[in-house]
Amino acid sequence: MMSLTLEIVEKLSSAAKAKAKEIGVPMNIAVVDEGANLKAFHRMDNAWLGSIDISIKKAKTARFFDMNSGEIGKLSQPGQPLYNIEHSNGGLITFPGGVVLKDESGTIIGAIGVSGGTVDQDHEVATAGAEALKSY
Amino acid sequence: MMSLTLEIVEKLSSAAKAKAKEIGVPMNIAVVDEGANLKAFHRMDNAWLGSIDISIKKAKTARFFDMNSGEIGKLSQPGQPLYNIEHSNGGLITFPGGVVLKDESGTIIGAIGVSGGTVDQDHEVATAGAEALKSY
Amino acid sequence: MMSLTLEIVEKLSSAAKAKAKEIGVPMNIAVVDEGANLKAFHRMDNAWLGSIDISIKKAKTARFFDMNSGEIGKLSQPGQPLYNIEHSNGGLITFPGGVVLKDESGTIIGAIGVSGGTVDQDHEVATAGAEALKSY
Amino acid sequence: MMSLTLEIVEKLSSAAKAKAKEIGVPMNIAVVDEGANLKAFHRMDNAWLGSIDISIKKAKTARFFDMNSGEIGKLSQPGQPLYNIEHSNGGLITFPGGVVLKDESGTIIGAIGVSGGTVDQDHEVATAGAEALKSY
Repeated sequence: MMSLTLEIVEKLSSAAKAKAKEIGVPMNIAVVDEGANLKAFHRMDNAWLGSIDISIKKAKTARFFDMNSGEIGKLSQPGQPLYNIEHSNGGLITFPGGVVLKDESGTIIGAIGVSGGTVDQDHEVATAGAEALKSY
Repeated sequence: MMSLTLEIVEKLSSAAKAKAKEIGVPMNIAVVDEGANLKAFHRMDNAWLGSIDISIKKAKTARFFDMNSGEIGKLSQPGQPLYNIEHSNGGLITFPGGVVLKDESGTIIGAIGVSGGTVDQDHEVATAGAEALKSY
Repeated sequence: MMSLTLEIVEKLSSAAKAKAKEIGVPMNIAVVDEGANLKAFHRMDNAWLGSIDISIKKAKTARFFDMNSGEIGKLSQPGQPLYNIEHSNGGLITFPGGVVLKDESGTIIGAIGVSGGTVDQDHEVATAGAEALKSY
Repeated sequence: MMSLTLEIVEKLSSAAKAKAKEIGVPMNIAVVDEGANLKAFHRMDNAWLGSIDISIKKAKTARFFDMNSGEIGKLSQPGQPLYNIEHSNGGLITFPGGVVLKDESGTIIGAIGVSGGTVDQDHEVATAGAEALKSY
């Protein structure tokens, strides 16, 4: 299994930052490893303060359940199977912006969480970070 | 960028208190600075005890995302993009009563949070506090 | 029993602020009422950010046990009867700077907590606030 | 006052990482800004997982009280003036490794926290990061 070195994580973060600059939205960007433990975090200038915690929680949420954070959000709505799962694990964030990181064999080796814009923008920037992993 | 001195914050709080007296509802009034750290808090006589924490969380929530707390609440409803965002940052309050504080150039330099009445009353009192900033 | 109105609390806070200015140390000043609930808080310009929480905890600690915070600290040392009592109540602060507020009959009606300088300075400023109650 | 941009913070982190490599100890490195809010975090490969939280808390502790974390630790020992101050602010870390960041005028604009080795090593790496600020 591929391991998320800091060198690789910095490149994923840079790819995410480049996308954030391209769309003109300052973002908070967090990456967690296989153990769901924080590996790197960057807050771009003028990004929301409240998104520090949210970006980290999105990354952890995605790795906790090995699916993008927004997928869990569909299941945590009132009346749905995972209603209020957000109360677990010291707080989850289940809307889009958390994306799993997969190595070339498809094994999940971590996750990236992005917060600072609309959930579509957050997901777009997180995906740009995750895509950058493919070049390794 | 203008800095929120205690002298200015006291005047914003007084303006909010004056509005609260005018409408006859005792309020909890909190002000946070640029870094979302508490600068001043006042609980008017007979104001709800549970609103101590709510007023502080409303102020922090507004500064965390640079928008009035009620705007976030519209987006955090079931089925909406930010559902259950309240689980982040040690607890958010996303109904009205948290209002951003802007200096003359439009830069957000903090926020005021008010709790003790209906959300409309809370927002009215917070706005009165925020408006007082314009005289500086 | 005398009740701590916001009007009175503001005057205690002002007396504490005046003493802080006199000794040249910016302070965080918190006052809690009979129920150990926050009534007012002021952070003077350039006062330590970490002292926001400490000043509030000192005030609560003093009212929780009806004695000045430093008295509890003597008993919470290793080998003493209240060793590590700081783990209770969401966190206590048991060094000086929390002072009980007594009405003219000697009944404790709240407490003031001050943080921002040495513990001696904190206690001096808190005492100045508490003394101001005597004029009511 | 100088502002800690992400560009500057990345360079401080890189200087700290270079020192950590030089002494052969993988480190966790956190930087907070003026408001004690996280700006960047890096975990070097094979650095302790438990040091993620410690490095962040060291940085916050240093900014909370505008002094290096180890200075507070001297005062928080049993029998010393700030005994058990660690119970405040959601948990402080008061041994060395948190170092304040000062701009050219001496104003404190944030702090860097390092954890992963002995406290002397942590302090040495944090200091290397802080020193790099002087070139801006």
